[in-house]
Amino acid sequence: MVLTTFGESHGAGIGGVLDGFPPGIIVDKAWINRQLQRRRTGSHTGSSARMEEDNVRFLSGLKDGQSTGAPIAFWVENQDVTDAAYPEGILRPSHADYTYWKKYGFFDHDGGGRASARESVARVVGGALAALLLKQEGIHILAFTRQIGPVCWKGESSQAKVEAIEANRLCCPDHKLAEEMENYLQELRSTGDTTGAMVTCLVSVVPCGLGEPAYGKLQADLAQAMMGINAAKGFEYGSGMGSAARRGSELNDIWEPGFHTRNNHSGGIQGGISNGEDIYFNVAFKPVPSLQRAQPTLNEKGEVTQLPPAGKRHDCCVVPRVIPVVESMAALVIADHLLMKYAYQSFSYHKK
Amino acid sequence: MVLTTFGESHGAGIGGVLDGFPPGIIVDKAWINRQLQRRRTGSHTGSSARMEEDNVRFLSGLKDGQSTGAPIAFWVENQDVTDAAYPEGILRPSHADYTYWKKYGFFDHDGGGRASARESVARVVGGALAALLLKQEGIHILAFTRQIGPVCWKGESSQAKVEAIEANRLCCPDHKLAEEMENYLQELRSTGDTTGAMVTCLVSVVPCGLGEPAYGKLQADLAQAMMGINAAKGFEYGSGMGSAARRGSELNDIWEPGFHTRNNHSGGIQGGISNGEDIYFNVAFKPVPSLQRAQPTLNEKGEVTQLPPAGKRHDCCVVPRVIPVVESMAALVIADHLLMKYAYQSFSYHKK
Amino acid sequence: MVLTTFGESHGAGIGGVLDGFPPGIIVDKAWINRQLQRRRTGSHTGSSARMEEDNVRFLSGLKDGQSTGAPIAFWVENQDVTDAAYPEGILRPSHADYTYWKKYGFFDHDGGGRASARESVARVVGGALAALLLKQEGIHILAFTRQIGPVCWKGESSQAKVEAIEANRLCCPDHKLAEEMENYLQELRSTGDTTGAMVTCLVSVVPCGLGEPAYGKLQADLAQAMMGINAAKGFEYGSGMGSAARRGSELNDIWEPGFHTRNNHSGGIQGGISNGEDIYFNVAFKPVPSLQRAQPTLNEKGEVTQLPPAGKRHDCCVVPRVIPVVESMAALVIADHLLMKYAYQSFSYHKK
Amino acid sequence: MVLTTFGESHGAGIGGVLDGFPPGIIVDKAWINRQLQRRRTGSHTGSSARMEEDNVRFLSGLKDGQSTGAPIAFWVENQDVTDAAYPEGILRPSHADYTYWKKYGFFDHDGGGRASARESVARVVGGALAALLLKQEGIHILAFTRQIGPVCWKGESSQAKVEAIEANRLCCPDHKLAEEMENYLQELRSTGDTTGAMVTCLVSVVPCGLGEPAYGKLQADLAQAMMGINAAKGFEYGSGMGSAARRGSELNDIWEPGFHTRNNHSGGIQGGISNGEDIYFNVAFKPVPSLQRAQPTLNEKGEVTQLPPAGKRHDCCVVPRVIPVVESMAALVIADHLLMKYAYQSFSYHKK
Repeated sequence: MVLTTFGESHGAGIGGVLDGFPPGIIVDKAWINRQLQRRRTGSHTGSSARMEEDNVRFLSGLKDGQSTGAPIAFWVENQDVTDAAYPEGILRPSHADYTYWKKYGFFDHDGGGRASARESVARVVGGALAALLLKQEGIHILAFTRQIGPVCWKGESSQAKVEAIEANRLCCPDHKLAEEMENYLQELRSTGDTTGAMVTCLVSVVPCGLGEPAYGKLQADLAQAMMGINAAKGFEYGSGMGSAARRGSELNDIWEPGFHTRNNHSGGIQGGISNGEDIYFNVAFKPVPSLQRAQPTLNEKGEVTQLPPAGKRHDCCVVPRVIPVVESMAALVIADHLLMKYAYQSFSYHKK
Repeated sequence: MVLTTFGESHGAGIGGVLDGFPPGIIVDKAWINRQLQRRRTGSHTGSSARMEEDNVRFLSGLKDGQSTGAPIAFWVENQDVTDAAYPEGILRPSHADYTYWKKYGFFDHDGGGRASARESVARVVGGALAALLLKQEGIHILAFTRQIGPVCWKGESSQAKVEAIEANRLCCPDHKLAEEMENYLQELRSTGDTTGAMVTCLVSVVPCGLGEPAYGKLQADLAQAMMGINAAKGFEYGSGMGSAARRGSELNDIWEPGFHTRNNHSGGIQGGISNGEDIYFNVAFKPVPSLQRAQPTLNEKGEVTQLPPAGKRHDCCVVPRVIPVVESMAALVIADHLLMKYAYQSFSYHKK
Repeated sequence: MVLTTFGESHGAGIGGVLDGFPPGIIVDKAWINRQLQRRRTGSHTGSSARMEEDNVRFLSGLKDGQSTGAPIAFWVENQDVTDAAYPEGILRPSHADYTYWKKYGFFDHDGGGRASARESVARVVGGALAALLLKQEGIHILAFTRQIGPVCWKGESSQAKVEAIEANRLCCPDHKLAEEMENYLQELRSTGDTTGAMVTCLVSVVPCGLGEPAYGKLQADLAQAMMGINAAKGFEYGSGMGSAARRGSELNDIWEPGFHTRNNHSGGIQGGISNGEDIYFNVAFKPVPSLQRAQPTLNEKGEVTQLPPAGKRHDCCVVPRVIPVVESMAALVIADHLLMKYAYQSFSYHKK
Repeated sequence: MVLTTFGESHGAGIGGVLDGFPPGIIVDKAWINRQLQRRRTGSHTGSSARMEEDNVRFLSGLKDGQSTGAPIAFWVENQDVTDAAYPEGILRPSHADYTYWKKYGFFDHDGGGRASARESVARVVGGALAALLLKQEGIHILAFTRQIGPVCWKGESSQAKVEAIEANRLCCPDHKLAEEMENYLQELRSTGDTTGAMVTCLVSVVPCGLGEPAYGKLQADLAQAMMGINAAKGFEYGSGMGSAARRGSELNDIWEPGFHTRNNHSGGIQGGISNGEDIYFNVAFKPVPSLQRAQPTLNEKGEVTQLPPAGKRHDCCVVPRVIPVVESMAALVIADHLLMKYAYQSFSYHKK
């Protein structure tokens, strides 16, 4: 399954093509729109003021509410585009202005083009399709907010409840922490600052056998997918970065009757292959680099100048909008490995 | 550039093919052997007692000490293989026994086969070739030990000195910490336990423009490569996982005259594309799961049993042997993106 | 460079995404539209009566008339779609009805969907972009009609003149033969029959060194591209199929001063790699299977029935409409290999 | 399934890695050796005098006579290598000397290196593995000689009998024609000349649904595989190149009760997807360019010189040695599409 996306933040729109999607899968457009809705700018504290009705138009690959096996193309028009949104010829700190300029040979005045988080509209639609396929096979994906700035939920990933997560705007499994997070965002807003965040993703009811043992390890493909999301700075699964400080006698997952493990420090993956336990991982995101305050920088001639405050079109945290993006990228990876499992395990003794 | 590897821990040997390597690159075999030597079992505290002279035999693709442009195949014979090394039909905790069994349909009695860390011999050779190519283009890669258990070097990645790193067996930039680490490993050995570790990798003198903006972001490909190394549990670059707790005003990299950034929280990558600053990242590894003490587990019938102590063939920490593996995987990713840069930037205005 | 296409003959439209196109290439939209115009249904003898203004809309990847390096997406609306065009539930002979049904699980009533020649709209746009890139590097691609039914031009491929080819509707290098071909098509039309055809393609001013020696031979990639065009039944380059009957002493290309070959039986490719001479190849197409007469067949229940005459929406020969499709597919292959050449020949001695 | 091959004609040997081969397939080494034996130089008229016992050594991926799912690597040592076999610094007509020189930057004195037909040893082993997998799924592949110079078998591809083909050295379905072919080869040998040939390949008992509709058409992938074989100049399937001269009313395949077609001009593929009928195709090969007579040419300084006669190490026709190569490349393509079919048709209604 290959998702190809296109479109720029300040162009005509954002689109994508999902090729290799199996035929006969029922496509629930309302659910896809709900995922888009979750990604869209809200009016709440901490979210960007850019308002767009992201109505996805499917251009191909569907018929009578089902996939046909042909490439599924989709297109979402940009509506709220203001050309004057960014100061011309000034390098925004920790943005992609400089690297795009040097790589492509021209300075893109229009809001970062492909580098904009708006590209994730296409990831959400493509990933929602993959998630629908996984649902039909009984596999579920759920992402939630673990941390915003100093406020952090310490619970075990597999203990997060979908109802609790859906009960607050910030998708935090604990409503009190959600309030603290909201307060922290409010405080940042008032000073024109922004914050980083951490998102946890949980994949449950996973069949054993997803993942290739050496170069297509499931965690490696998940890491690549997550680190491809804008602003992601780190990925960890199971016992994660903290493993560096731990002992084998603490972290080893002991097998218990029924072939389940007592703990799940392995994060549902052993030797690159799913073992049937829940898969969970964290993705850390840096603070949004567009600040509502002036910053020193250079212009394209290399002269010192000031970047004015970013204006209200920018969020002060990637959460909660990034959450459906995380779910979508996870769904694409898991669906791909499910196809590979079917390809390789339909032979010989597997059929018996 | 595609590295294909093959061979099993307890089979005839380990090999690989590096396809797409440019012609005319001088291949310094002594340096490749030095990298292999660094990966090989030492006799020091904390390292496995399996002794093998890993003499790489190049089967193709070289002539008169240079690459010819043809696929470069290489082969390293296994020499110290003992069939009786693992207890038959018992699931080792936090190993790949169960997942291989379920994925491939048979219980592999022979030391994990492809899942063994011995597969990394091929990664080291392939990556060493890539590193030689990068050296000719002026790009250098250096990995070192940041943390073993509770002992952690807190310095800035770009401040690590190659001389200091090479001055101690554990490749730690600080010789006092290296001693503490050795002591900690000694202590673990005495109790039959193992420990996790963290490795930092630094890529320096990187040209601007490596990386694709959306789905081939440089950090995404590095993450995939690192998370494909056995026992890796987490990847972070630049400000990393800690970004979740930080503010934009702290982490933004301010541009200064000469188009360099005051800090380098971006880790040398912005919008998925290298910006010319040093690239650095951390990889966390879990403790080696083979303990020198008995562990409860199941046999293949699902009955509770005990796994005996693992014996002396096993390290108690992936460091220092994993360090040339990290360097090698990084070299393969960077070399690939360098080829892509040349492909796409040889047109039009780039030629002017 | 990857072209992904989407859309169905009787759906909303046809589109595509060209990813990996270098930045800074001037995009001549008028020329792209001219290529589309050549592919479009004409009103002449032998061409389909389906009338559509194929106005391509570029959705992304262009700015100020140049490529930006971002994916270039494009979309052409279907306008003249009549749902009642095909008899429901009847297998058309030598079409893809049966295979799509069995592969995808449902009988597609709507004109073959992806199997329709209308999909080639996207190939033409994608290939025209590649051809513009090649033009800037001095490489030209020209396809023409060699044969329609019994009428065949016997000239050497490299002797075909672009002016002669453009002087007649059927793109035949000889205007008398073009008339004979027109007469033959007229005759077929009157009997409701159709005919096969052969197209020759010439790639000139090709740099030496395009093509990979073993599995990416230039002729292999050209063959794959051509055999992917609807109705293609055969591919040959240089001395072609006739080589089977010839002797080495006849076909060997003798090197002459200046490193040119006396003849060019090699078709510009030796060992899978371009040698600097003209590349030329032929593609044979089967007769259009939709006849303007009734044909016996089965319905989806497996009962014998009759397929009524196809109506006037169908051509009686793939020529001349397929000609820009052949050019486009050739351009995509050559452009890809040019990128690979730049990738691998920007190292070491090549720079000197 | 990816076959990576390596090794040069005058190097240490030839090898390959087949990655993605399913586990649990019984690997009949005797049959693989038989395929290698068929490819090997015979002592008969028309075959090269280079004598090598091609004993394949499997380096990985097999256990107890079955595939394990790990990459299968294999290696065949070169034994009869004579460094002095080719005149240094002289361009052989219609060989790859010039293109390799220009692409890779040095003149390869050693028998063409990767360009040598000896590379096909690896194709035969890899393809034999794929063929064994296909046999277990009931799919059979058979190639035979259709034409050598003026002697041509006119029968229908699906009428060729395996017993007849195996009854003569040249693998011709008609023993009288086989004799004529032998006589023709004898005549060429006596004059130091060589000849082209045509091989037909038949794939039988093929499930419906192999092939992707637009860019992975089954015939396109077969064409690519065949045109990647050394000396191949053309590929055609079903009604082939001759389709250009034919009418739709002649070539259309009429559906008959039981969903079989009256004829099989489609060659078992419609819309890029197998329809359950026999797949058959022809591959034309040019004459071997190494003549047993002197030829005019240039040396590497560009001066006119003479290439001496090639000596007895060279065949005067690619047949019969190329026949197992054709079968092998076909097996790899068909096996790949079978995996894809399993991947995409294991969902939803397909399971019902």
